[in-house]
Amino acid sequence: MKLATIENGTPDGALVVVSADGSRHLPAAIATLQAAIESWETSEPALRALGARLDSGEGESTDGLAFAAPLPRAWQWLDGSAYRSHGELMETLFGTEPPPAGRPLMYQGLSHQFLSATADVPLPREEDGIDFEGEFGVITDFVPMGVTPEQALGHIKLLVQINDWSLRALAPVEMKTGFGWIHAKPACSVAPFAVTPEVLGDAWREGRVHLPLAVDWNGERFGNAEGGAMEFGFHELVAHAASTRSLCAGTIIGSGTVSNSNFREIGSSCIAERRGIEMLDEGKPRTGFMHFGDTVRMEARLRDGGLLFGAIDQKVVKG
Amino acid sequence: MKLATIENGTPDGALVVVSADGSRHLPAAIATLQAAIESWETSEPALRALGARLDSGEGESTDGLAFAAPLPRAWQWLDGSAYRSHGELMETLFGTEPPPAGRPLMYQGLSHQFLSATADVPLPREEDGIDFEGEFGVITDFVPMGVTPEQALGHIKLLVQINDWSLRALAPVEMKTGFGWIHAKPACSVAPFAVTPEVLGDAWREGRVHLPLAVDWNGERFGNAEGGAMEFGFHELVAHAASTRSLCAGTIIGSGTVSNSNFREIGSSCIAERRGIEMLDEGKPRTGFMHFGDTVRMEARLRDGGLLFGAIDQKVVKG
Repeated sequence: MKLATIENGTPDGALVVVSADGSRHLPAAIATLQAAIESWETSEPALRALGARLDSGEGESTDGLAFAAPLPRAWQWLDGSAYRSHGELMETLFGTEPPPAGRPLMYQGLSHQFLSATADVPLPREEDGIDFEGEFGVITDFVPMGVTPEQALGHIKLLVQINDWSLRALAPVEMKTGFGWIHAKPACSVAPFAVTPEVLGDAWREGRVHLPLAVDWNGERFGNAEGGAMEFGFHELVAHAASTRSLCAGTIIGSGTVSNSNFREIGSSCIAERRGIEMLDEGKPRTGFMHFGDTVRMEARLRDGGLLFGAIDQKVVKG
Repeated sequence: MKLATIENGTPDGALVVVSADGSRHLPAAIATLQAAIESWETSEPALRALGARLDSGEGESTDGLAFAAPLPRAWQWLDGSAYRSHGELMETLFGTEPPPAGRPLMYQGLSHQFLSATADVPLPREEDGIDFEGEFGVITDFVPMGVTPEQALGHIKLLVQINDWSLRALAPVEMKTGFGWIHAKPACSVAPFAVTPEVLGDAWREGRVHLPLAVDWNGERFGNAEGGAMEFGFHELVAHAASTRSLCAGTIIGSGTVSNSNFREIGSSCIAERRGIEMLDEGKPRTGFMHFGDTVRMEARLRDGGLLFGAIDQKVVKG
C-alpha cells in the first residue's frame, strides 16, 4: 500500500491512498497521515480497503496533484548514520574520530517542516557548503520505552525516501561542541509516497531496504548505492531511539546517507562523500558543493522497474 | 497575562487564561496554546480581554484543575546552554573542551512530549545518573530565517520554566560522537503557567529573566541562582536558532541550566554542577544522582513574592 499527502492549504495536508504505479488515487476517510499512524490498528484496514479498490482499477488520476511530504511536519525526526563506509569517509574529510563500536549514531533533527519532493529548497548562502544526502527512512507507530530490536520491527509501519539537506561548512564547529547540529541541518525533503513494507517483497528484510538509491546531480548520475548495507537495521535504530524515551506515533527515523564500501565504482549519495574519496585518492577534495540553481534527483526502483517512493527532483535557491 | 493548558484527554489539552495569582481561570475561545501561538496577532487581544476580566475578579477557581505543560507537545524544542559558569563546571566534570567563543551552544531535543509540573517522571534505571536541570525558556511565534537578535526579541511571546531531565551517565558517549543526545535527554517537565513578558516588569530585560530559580531536592534547598546571568540573551538564542531555518510558531527555546559564578554560595540548578564543584574543591565528586522516589521542586517568585510560573514539584519513578 502506498500513501501520500496532497497539499490543501493546511499544515498537514490531506491523506490519499495511491495505486502501485502512482497513477491513481482515492481520498482517505481519515484526514491526515499523522492521524492515521496514531490510530494505525483501525485506520490501516480502512486504508487497505481503498488500496484494494485501486488495485481493481478504481481511482482518479494523480496528474496535476501537488504532493506534499507524506508527513509535512512530524513530532519527531531522528536521523541515524548507519552506513559505516559513509562514516569512514566523513571521518577522513572532517578529521573526526570513529564512533564507539556496536552502537548506532543518531541525532535529533528539525521536524516541524518536511519539504515536498519538488519544492525549491531555499538556503541562505552557497558558501555554507550545500549538500544533499540520499537516505531511506521509516515511520513508526507508538513505540514504548525499552523495546527490543525484534519488537521494534513490528512498529515500523511505513518506509520513506529522504533528502537530508546538509550545510557542510557549518557542520564541524557544531559537531565539535558535542551538541549536534542546528545550523548544519535545515529542513529535509521527502519523496511523495510512504509505502508499507510488503510492497518491497523480499527487498525488505533484516530491517533494511535492499534496493539501490539512484542519485543524479544536475542530470548526471552521481551514485547508485545499495540500501541494504546498513551496519544497523532500522529495527535496531528504532530500539536505540527508544532506550530512554517512548516514541510518539509518526516518529520518522532515517538511515543516514546510503553508502557502500565499493564507493569508487557505485558512487555516493552526497557530495561530501565524494570529497572524502578525493582526499583519500588525490590528497585533497576537488568537487565543490552545490550552487543556487543546481538540481538533485533521487529515486529507488523495484526490481520490476517501478518507482517505489516516487522521485525527489528539486532545485536549490537563494533563501 | 498567564496562560495554562488543562488536561482534557486530548494530546494538546485545553487553553485557559489564569489570574495573576493563579487562583482563577477563564476558558479561552481558541482551543489550544499551539493554535493561539500560530495566530498570535488575533488570538492575543482576545486572550488579554479574558485576562482583564480575571483582573476584575471574574473566573472560576483553579482548585482541582489538572494542569498539563503549557505546550504538552511542541513541533520544536531547542535547548541552549547559555550560562558560562554551568558550562565550565560541566567541562570540569566531563573533561570536555570549552566551546568556541562568541556563539551559543544549542541542541535539538525531544519535543513530542512535555510532562506536567506534577507528573511522576518514569525513567528506566537509577544507574543512568538521573539529574534535574532548572531552566527558563521562551515560546516564539513564527520566526523567519535570518532574523537579527533585535528582531528576534519581538518574536518572544511567552516565558516558561522548565526541568530538563538528564541522564548523566549516558551523556559523555553521546556527546563524544558530536551528534548530540538521544539517550541522555528524555522528556522535559514544564511549570504550569506560560506568561507574557510584561508580567515580569523590569525583571524581563536584555532578553533575560532577572529572577532567581529556587531548586529543592527532597525538600532541601539545592540552589537559588539568578536567571539574568546568561552569556547570551534569549533573543540571541532565537537568532542563533533561526540562522539557516525558519522557526515554527510554538518553538520552545531553553536557557540551559541556570547557573551563577558564585555557585559555592548560591548553589546549583542541577546535581552535575555540584559534582563539578566537588571535583574542583575536593578532587572528586561526592554527591550522587537521584534515586527512584526522590522529589525535586523548582519555582521562581516575583519580587512581591508571587509565584510566577507556578511550581514544578515531581517525583522520579521506575519507568
